[in-house]
Amino acid sequence: MAKSPEEEHPHKAFGWAAKDTSGILSPFHFSRRDNGVEDVTIKILYCGVCHSDLHAAKNEWGFSRYPMVPGHEIVGLVTKTGSNVMKFKVDDRVGVGVMVNSCKSCEYCHQDLENYCPQMIFTYNAQNHDGTKTYVYSPMKYYGMTEPGKHLGIVGLGGLGHVAVKIGKAFGLKVTVISSSSRKEREALDRLGADSFLVSNDPAKMKAAFGTMDYIIDTVSAVHALAPYLSLLKTNGKLVTLGLPEKPLELPIFPLVLGRKLVGGSDVGGMKETQEMLDFCAKHNIAADVEVIQMDQINTAMERLAKSDVRYRFVIDVANSLSQSQL
Amino acid sequence: MAKSPEEEHPHKAFGWAAKDTSGILSPFHFSRRDNGVEDVTIKILYCGVCHSDLHAAKNEWGFSRYPMVPGHEIVGLVTKTGSNVMKFKVDDRVGVGVMVNSCKSCEYCHQDLENYCPQMIFTYNAQNHDGTKTYVYSPMKYYGMTEPGKHLGIVGLGGLGHVAVKIGKAFGLKVTVISSSSRKEREALDRLGADSFLVSNDPAKMKAAFGTMDYIIDTVSAVHALAPYLSLLKTNGKLVTLGLPEKPLELPIFPLVLGRKLVGGSDVGGMKETQEMLDFCAKHNIAADVEVIQMDQINTAMERLAKSDVRYRFVIDVANSLSQSQL
Repeated sequence: MAKSPEEEHPHKAFGWAAKDTSGILSPFHFSRRDNGVEDVTIKILYCGVCHSDLHAAKNEWGFSRYPMVPGHEIVGLVTKTGSNVMKFKVDDRVGVGVMVNSCKSCEYCHQDLENYCPQMIFTYNAQNHDGTKTYVYSPMKYYGMTEPGKHLGIVGLGGLGHVAVKIGKAFGLKVTVISSSSRKEREALDRLGADSFLVSNDPAKMKAAFGTMDYIIDTVSAVHALAPYLSLLKTNGKLVTLGLPEKPLELPIFPLVLGRKLVGGSDVGGMKETQEMLDFCAKHNIAADVEVIQMDQINTAMERLAKSDVRYRFVIDVANSLSQSQL
Repeated sequence: MAKSPEEEHPHKAFGWAAKDTSGILSPFHFSRRDNGVEDVTIKILYCGVCHSDLHAAKNEWGFSRYPMVPGHEIVGLVTKTGSNVMKFKVDDRVGVGVMVNSCKSCEYCHQDLENYCPQMIFTYNAQNHDGTKTYVYSPMKYYGMTEPGKHLGIVGLGGLGHVAVKIGKAFGLKVTVISSSSRKEREALDRLGADSFLVSNDPAKMKAAFGTMDYIIDTVSAVHALAPYLSLLKTNGKLVTLGLPEKPLELPIFPLVLGRKLVGGSDVGGMKETQEMLDFCAKHNIAADVEVIQMDQINTAMERLAKSDVRYRFVIDVANSLSQSQL
């Protein structure tokens, strides 16, 4: 007979889980396996909240499995290491992203692309696709959006977009933030260092910007039109989409063929590239701007996130608000 | 007062024109300007018939101007050269593609990309977009689809597709033709030299081919689904669309993001690259397979073209069927 989540493994664990498609999180007791020879056990200090967590908690992509403890932007301290572990020791500060394992033997793993390994195991809702994307560094490198002086447009100024502005500036690009309203204009220019701001609902300004951009990073996670953004690109321009809308988007073909433009996608980076990104961000003093919340504020935070009401990432102070006393 | 097409310029000319959205072509008398110092006058010997001519003749893209003499796959002999013309002399055999002029001074012209010059003048329906695409060499070069041993899928075995098979094989690729029925299977394998044939309407075979291709060239000019073809691509795979459907296509985002796939487009090559392509084809003995028709068979040919009933390109024997005696 199947054991309950709490009794399946020897070690007790505690988190907040979504239990159905309401996506509402509530306290949840479960258990974890013993630390293996290749494993690292960590104490979680903080966890970011991504729009994809919201998609997953509410089963908006159609493959959620409940109960689910969402979260894939994790920072913690190592508390135990297996005998084969060489790279980490107890008390090291570590991060966990969207994946926790891969096969280590396929063509993708051999190319440091374990993020695309067919047997990669996601951090939650495991053995299934999740597709969250925390970093914007990997797509910019892969699609060659790093030539200084080129003009980058960033659609959407959320958790990804605001970091993309900072990384784009660090690459020496001219950066324009494209947003549906002028609400975030001063912030984008003054605080984040964008060069200009374009309101996508202003037809005259959009028209004036036609054919002026070399690259566009589209971070919008909702269903939206691509045509206006493709118009902003020059010939040979590239639009890379990072959001994961739940339905297909309309793709106009004329701009692609007549302007040799492309639409590409990208997921998170592999471990090697993620370390490279962290080093790059440390060197350029790039950090995400966050609002720290307590665990029991998560449902309100997710409601606000659904309305894009966050500057720019909610991060749960796990260590201080999900204490062992609750076990 | 505006002069008639026949009296506007000093030199009489004769062709077959579409006069309305029926797209039916009929004899048409018009006139051409004097040969300028930078001009070359040619006698047209042959002209290919592209599906885009059909789109244009019937105004399916919405910007046709009548009367229109379609055709942009032209072969002829030079009959007169201007005093500044250095590259051509009388009796040279020459080709004319989709463009007849460009500004020669913009960033695209300076990069031998006059095909993307904003002031480029099309061969017909001029001062307007046409977007026909005769060659498949340029997209394969631009998107890096030339690595020997990689697997190329070609969707649609028409005028472009059959040449793409030959060029793909010349690049050393494994080539699979993807077609809605098995009607052209033997031809693709035996005559054109494709390595395999995949029937897109066979779900089991499509499923077996999931994730096996590095590149796909999509030559289909009608509205169609991209999702099945994106599924055929490996991680990092590229789909390049050359057809110009009259409506946007549905673009599923998950395969782009989770598989870092891209969808790009491409138009004809510039003049320099077109010459490179012709040299490449001469070296590898690549030629289009054509059905030669007489001028007065054009309307039947266009009906057959609309039904994909052609192996693989209609070419009008202009010199022998549109004689000066008809003037």
